[in-house]
Amino acid sequence: MNALPHGGLALSSLEEQLLQPGVKGLPITAPLRQGAIGVQGWKLLHGDTSFPVAVLKTSALRHNLDWMRAFCERNKVELAPHGKTTMSPQLFGAQLANGAWGITLANAVQVQVAHRFGVRRVLVANQLVARSDVRAVLQLLHDDPDFECFVLADSLAGVARLAEEVAQHPLSRPLPVLVELGLSGKRAGCRTLDEAMTVARALERAPGLLLAGFEGYEGLLDDPQAVEDFVRQLCALVLEADDEGLFGSPEILVTAGGSGFFDLVARGFQGLHGLSRPLRPVLRSGCYLTSDHGMYQVQLQRLDRREGIKPGEGLRPALEIWSVVQSRPEPGLAILTMGKRDASHDAGLPVPLWTHRPGPGAPHALPAACEIVKMNDQHAYLRLPEGDPIRDSLAVGDLVGCGISHPCTTFDRWPLLLAVDDDYLVRGALNTFF
Amino acid sequence: MNALPHGGLALSSLEEQLLQPGVKGLPITAPLRQGAIGVQGWKLLHGDTSFPVAVLKTSALRHNLDWMRAFCERNKVELAPHGKTTMSPQLFGAQLANGAWGITLANAVQVQVAHRFGVRRVLVANQLVARSDVRAVLQLLHDDPDFECFVLADSLAGVARLAEEVAQHPLSRPLPVLVELGLSGKRAGCRTLDEAMTVARALERAPGLLLAGFEGYEGLLDDPQAVEDFVRQLCALVLEADDEGLFGSPEILVTAGGSGFFDLVARGFQGLHGLSRPLRPVLRSGCYLTSDHGMYQVQLQRLDRREGIKPGEGLRPALEIWSVVQSRPEPGLAILTMGKRDASHDAGLPVPLWTHRPGPGAPHALPAACEIVKMNDQHAYLRLPEGDPIRDSLAVGDLVGCGISHPCTTFDRWPLLLAVDDDYLVRGALNTFF
Repeated sequence: MNALPHGGLALSSLEEQLLQPGVKGLPITAPLRQGAIGVQGWKLLHGDTSFPVAVLKTSALRHNLDWMRAFCERNKVELAPHGKTTMSPQLFGAQLANGAWGITLANAVQVQVAHRFGVRRVLVANQLVARSDVRAVLQLLHDDPDFECFVLADSLAGVARLAEEVAQHPLSRPLPVLVELGLSGKRAGCRTLDEAMTVARALERAPGLLLAGFEGYEGLLDDPQAVEDFVRQLCALVLEADDEGLFGSPEILVTAGGSGFFDLVARGFQGLHGLSRPLRPVLRSGCYLTSDHGMYQVQLQRLDRREGIKPGEGLRPALEIWSVVQSRPEPGLAILTMGKRDASHDAGLPVPLWTHRPGPGAPHALPAACEIVKMNDQHAYLRLPEGDPIRDSLAVGDLVGCGISHPCTTFDRWPLLLAVDDDYLVRGALNTFF
Repeated sequence: MNALPHGGLALSSLEEQLLQPGVKGLPITAPLRQGAIGVQGWKLLHGDTSFPVAVLKTSALRHNLDWMRAFCERNKVELAPHGKTTMSPQLFGAQLANGAWGITLANAVQVQVAHRFGVRRVLVANQLVARSDVRAVLQLLHDDPDFECFVLADSLAGVARLAEEVAQHPLSRPLPVLVELGLSGKRAGCRTLDEAMTVARALERAPGLLLAGFEGYEGLLDDPQAVEDFVRQLCALVLEADDEGLFGSPEILVTAGGSGFFDLVARGFQGLHGLSRPLRPVLRSGCYLTSDHGMYQVQLQRLDRREGIKPGEGLRPALEIWSVVQSRPEPGLAILTMGKRDASHDAGLPVPLWTHRPGPGAPHALPAACEIVKMNDQHAYLRLPEGDPIRDSLAVGDLVGCGISHPCTTFDRWPLLLAVDDDYLVRGALNTFF
C-alpha cells in the first residue's frame, strides 16, 4: 500500500521506526520495529493485542478502493479524497495508487504531512489565512517546483491576503485558487453567485494568483434536491467565469462531493459543456474508504438506492474498535475498556457488533438490541436487552467489537491502526498524523 | 518542569527530538529541535505560530500546582492526579516535583508511557482485564522491582483473572489491588458494601495479590450530599476490612476525588481513625492543573464557595485554543480555523474569550454574547451578537482565543502544546502521548 516515488523514503522510514511500549493497541513490552508488526502473528480474537484497539479490515479497504475507482471511471470524474479523514500516509498512498488525482486537505500542517510522504498534488478545501500557514505552503511550492497545491478564497480580503504573501514570497508560477461557493446559514463560502463572481474577477486581476475553478461543499445539506440545485449553481459559475475569460489555468477545476451525495455531484458536473478549455471535475469524498456503521452507512444506502446498487455491493465498513468487558456491575450493563478517547461520539455512539471469548473460533453477532448508551473518556456503557441470554453469557474479559459513526473522529484518536484480515489476524500497521 | 531522576533521559530525549513540519501549532518549514522552540521568539499575538494552536499559560499552571499542593497539605491528603487528563510527561514531572504522591492512569498503555518517562508510582483507577494488558503491567513490575502499581478489582472474575496472570508471571512481591465501590446505575464498581467485602476477602486469599485499600469515583454524581454519603461508604469499607484483618499492605489506601468534589472527599477521609495501620488518603483530580472555562469552572466555583475561597483565588484556567477568522460569510457569522479535531465538544463548545489583529498590543475581550454555536471537524461557527460593533470590526485574519470545557478531550487533540507567558510569547513545548 505504499511505494510512492517521491515520499517512498519517508514512508519506509515509518516501517523502520522503533515503536515504544505505550502505543494504543500494541501489546509490546519492548521496542518493536513497525515493519515487524505484520509478522508477529497477533490474533485479535485470541486477545493478543492491547485493548482497546482500532482495526482496519484490508478486504473492505480493497473493495472500497476498487469500488470508488470504478465509480469515478464510470462517471468520468476525478477523485481527490479528503485526506483529513484518515491523515494516514499509507492510506494516501493506496488512494493515489488506485487512481486518485490528488489528496484534499484542510490546512497547512496537513499539507506538510502529505508532502512529506510523497503526495504530489493537494487541494486545500479551505481558506488559508494565517500568515504563517500561507507561508508554509508557499515554502513547499518554492522548494519543490513540481508540487501542486490549490487553495480556496471566498472574499476579497482573502484574495488580498494571499496576493500579499505571494508578493513577499514570489513563486515561479502563479498560485491556483478556487472560489468557494457556500450556503446561506452554513459554513464558509460566498453566499451568492454575484459575490463569487466578484471574488473570481479579483483573482483574475491579482498578481501571483490565478483563478483555477470553483469549489463547494454540499455535505452540509440533507436534501438531494438542494444538492442538485447547489451543483447547478457551481456549474453556472464555471460557465459565467469562462464566458468572461477569467480562468488563468490550462484547465478548469470544479469540485464538490462529500461522502453522502457524490453521485449527485458527479452527475451534475456531467452537464458542463462548451467551455473554452478542458474541465477537470473532482470529487472529494474522504469517508468512502472506510464507510462506517452509522451516519455514512445511512447516507450510502440512500446513494446505493439512487444508483441502483444492490445490497451488499456498495461500500463496506472497514473500521472497528475492539475493547474488553471490564465490569458487569448490573444484569443489564457491561462496562467496556473504550471511551471518547477511542471512538467517535459526535454523530452517534459506537455500534456493538460482535462478541468473542478470547480463543479460537469466530465472533458471535451481538443481539441488535444491545446498545452503547454512553461513553466517558475511557469507558463505554453497553446496555444488554432484558430477557436476552447475553445478560448471562457476557463475562468480564470477553471481547466486544464495535462499528463507529463518522470515521474522521475515530481516526484522529489513533496514532496507529492495525490492518487485519477477515480472521482478525494482524497484518500490519498504519500511521496517522493528527 | 522535568528532571526526574529515573525518566530524565527519556524526558530530555523529547527536547532533543527533531520535529518535522506538519505538527499542529508549529510554524516550521524545516525540522526543528523541540528544545529550541522556546528560543524562537514566537509571539502568538503577532500571528507567528501556525493556527489553530493550543497554548498553556505557565503562570496559571504554576498557580494551580502551588494551590493544590497547599490544599492537600492543609487537608492532610495525598495527590495522585489523573494522568489521563494530559498524558504529558512534562506535566507529570511538574506534578511530582510539586508533591504528588503518584500518578493515576486508566489503562496499561498509559502506565507504559508514564513509566518510560520516570513516574515511579501509579494507580490504575480501572480494572485491568485483557490478558496482554495485565501482562504488560506485570512485565514492568518484574523488570523494575522498585516500580509501584496499584490496580482495581470489582468482581470475583476480575480477581481470578489477575491471580491467574500473576501465577503465570510471578513477581517478587504481591500485586496490590484496591476494591472499587461503584454507584447504582453508573459505571464499574461493586454496587453494595457486601459485594465489595466479598471481593476484598477474595483478594486476601488470592495468591500473588494483596488487598491494599478501597477506591471510588464520586465524579459521576451531581449532588454534594450524595458525594458525602458515598465517601462515608468507602470509609465504612476500610473499617470493616481492617476489622477483619484483610489488608495485606503496610498501609491502607483509600482514594476517590475527581475535579469537582475533592474538598468533600478530603474532608470525608479525615473521619477515618482507629485503624490497625497507617492510612494513605489519596485524591485523584486530573483537571485541577488546567481547570477550564466550562464544566470544571462551574464545579470549582461551587467548591470555592464551600471552601470559603475568594473569587480570583481559586484554580485558574490555563488552556486556550487560538484560531483565525477564515471567513465572514454573513454579518452575524465568523468561521474559525478550528474544529472538533482541536477543542473539546463533549461537555459544551469552546468559549470565545479574546480577539486580536496580529501585531503588537494586548488582545481585546470578546463581547459575552459571542458564542460558538457549532463545530465541524475543522471549523467553528462563531455567532456575533446583533447590534454589537464586533460585527463590523472582526475581519478575516483576526485571531480568536477560546477557552474550553473539559480539558481531557482537548489535550488528546494535541501531540504538542505550546507553553506561553502572559504576553503569549512561546516559552517551550509539552508533549502528549495518546
